[in-house]
Amino acid sequence: MELLEGIFSRRSVRSYRDEPVSAGDLHQILVAGSRAPSGLNNQPWRFVVIRSREVKDDLAELTRYRRIVSSAPLLIAVFIDRQAIYNEVKDHQGIGACIQNMLLAAHGLGLGAVWLGEILKSADEVRARLGVADVMELMAVLAIGHPAGPAGELTGRKPLDQLLLKEL
Amino acid sequence: MELLEGIFSRRSVRSYRDEPVSAGDLHQILVAGSRAPSGLNNQPWRFVVIRSREVKDDLAELTRYRRIVSSAPLLIAVFIDRQAIYNEVKDHQGIGACIQNMLLAAHGLGLGAVWLGEILKSADEVRARLGVADVMELMAVLAIGHPAGPAGELTGRKPLDQLLLKEL
Repeated sequence: MELLEGIFSRRSVRSYRDEPVSAGDLHQILVAGSRAPSGLNNQPWRFVVIRSREVKDDLAELTRYRRIVSSAPLLIAVFIDRQAIYNEVKDHQGIGACIQNMLLAAHGLGLGAVWLGEILKSADEVRARLGVADVMELMAVLAIGHPAGPAGELTGRKPLDQLLLKEL
Repeated sequence: MELLEGIFSRRSVRSYRDEPVSAGDLHQILVAGSRAPSGLNNQPWRFVVIRSREVKDDLAELTRYRRIVSSAPLLIAVFIDRQAIYNEVKDHQGIGACIQNMLLAAHGLGLGAVWLGEILKSADEVRARLGVADVMELMAVLAIGHPAGPAGELTGRKPLDQLLLKEL
């Protein structure tokens, strides 16, 4: 898949076939995340990979998106290492770049993924359930799998004339 | 360029040939940014495009990276519309996803780009110089142009075993 076409055709995918994501694909997705740029190259992102039925079901209790979390073959919980932070705003931006790389990589591999943010309301419970040190703060959970159906429509996007404030 | 290969081969590019970025390429880059995902699809990103010699020189005074800002054929100042914010952390992450889409799009078009964050120390001055309403907050400046030389090495990245906290 061509890079620009991949950026334009990526969609949030919320339904998956009952088929595991290969170890090779997972590796590519994580490496893609690790290649994001970060301020001072501090690379504050950390990952927990979840395939366990039991853990997925427990996490599903902590979000409105229970069905997505319990049915996804693969979850990647993305944390920020608070010891690595140098600037909250820039580090949160960097985490977003890391997540976008992973979403695009999944798309490029023929997988579908969705970025779950609502589960941050239960960030501490998720961290505790995953047994991660409390210096790690949950930033998002990505659900990933083989898409159950054709790609949906892109959710509405503002036209450029509403985004481009001025040209100088 | 293939999507995964593009993610892996992207580098920060800080030196540019004296050649403008075409209107078509700029359009593709901005559309790529606009296709990023955002929480509640709130799309809080706004852009100011800068090609003016005078404006670039003024902005160059506001950062340590003066040479990059004054020599880049194209700058894109990325703002967040504070009226659109619903969650600071998630919105800053979304801005990062938007920026990463633009950096990747530039790379896919054969251009080089770099994400400048240090200039945020002068965010208010930049906003004032660009004549943007104070409800807009500067998030980053991207410098973009045709690379002056071959791609450099990737800055060091932590190996996955330092990033992957656990697999469950």
